[in-house]
Amino acid sequence: MATTKLLVKMVMDRWNGSISNLNKQLNTLTDEQLEKEIAPGKNRGLYLLGHLIAVHDEMLVLLGLSEKLFPELHQVFIKQADKVAAQTPTVAELREMWVQHNDFLQEKFTKMNPEAWFEKHIAVSEEEFSKEPHRNKLNIIITRTSHLQYHMGQLVLLN
Amino acid sequence: MATTKLLVKMVMDRWNGSISNLNKQLNTLTDEQLEKEIAPGKNRGLYLLGHLIAVHDEMLVLLGLSEKLFPELHQVFIKQADKVAAQTPTVAELREMWVQHNDFLQEKFTKMNPEAWFEKHIAVSEEEFSKEPHRNKLNIIITRTSHLQYHMGQLVLLN
Repeated sequence: MATTKLLVKMVMDRWNGSISNLNKQLNTLTDEQLEKEIAPGKNRGLYLLGHLIAVHDEMLVLLGLSEKLFPELHQVFIKQADKVAAQTPTVAELREMWVQHNDFLQEKFTKMNPEAWFEKHIAVSEEEFSKEPHRNKLNIIITRTSHLQYHMGQLVLLN
Repeated sequence: MATTKLLVKMVMDRWNGSISNLNKQLNTLTDEQLEKEIAPGKNRGLYLLGHLIAVHDEMLVLLGLSEKLFPELHQVFIKQADKVAAQTPTVAELREMWVQHNDFLQEKFTKMNPEAWFEKHIAVSEEEFSKEPHRNKLNIIITRTSHLQYHMGQLVLLN
């Protein structure tokens, strides 16, 4: 049991650290900088921010914590590539959604007890889970932290 | 005990997945592409590859597994920024070092039993560790996977 709590702390510390670093990074960037491409012909900062909110919104569902807060982002920031949608939220709107989403996640996460992280997530069946117990909720945090870091490495190029 | 093994698998799966994705990415890039900057005025692919090898070399020491395999990389790829060193290894040489380093890590990791991952790493004292047991060897893998993903998000820009 002590190990369970310890491991959850290790994984959640890295998640929280990644979110915190991304927040710091967003604070150093102006809206104009976030409207620029991270490299010539590549995604804009705006798109990456929308993409992260949309992916974290899917995570809420996967973890069985809630419906999506911003389901309208899925089409524009996951299904479609950057610069395809005729209209997207503004950077200012995305910044607000990002803060709101993080606050919501934080509130939900702090209410979970360590054991709950080892339950299966929504996208795996009971039968699969009995054979593959690593497909649990904590593993979703591990993979989404990886995803967050990947895009963090791109957002720093806007400075 | 079952939980310990499960947690180690979850963390190591993500590490191995990140290494595997980076290997695929390196295989899609020519040496010429790796000599280019990931974005105008930013680090070159060559520098990021050398940096990853140098950081993983430090990890070997932190985990108490071995001396560094390529100590000469520290100065050029960690202490110094890109384009400072008068001479660096070639991309071809770095590719070889990368493969050799991964093979070495893989061999060392497969020999570790799950409990060993919860021992303290080299940079933490016994006293600190008694209060902060999360500063263990597995945590080093969690943070280095984050680091790897961050630079992976940059290396994909070379395609």
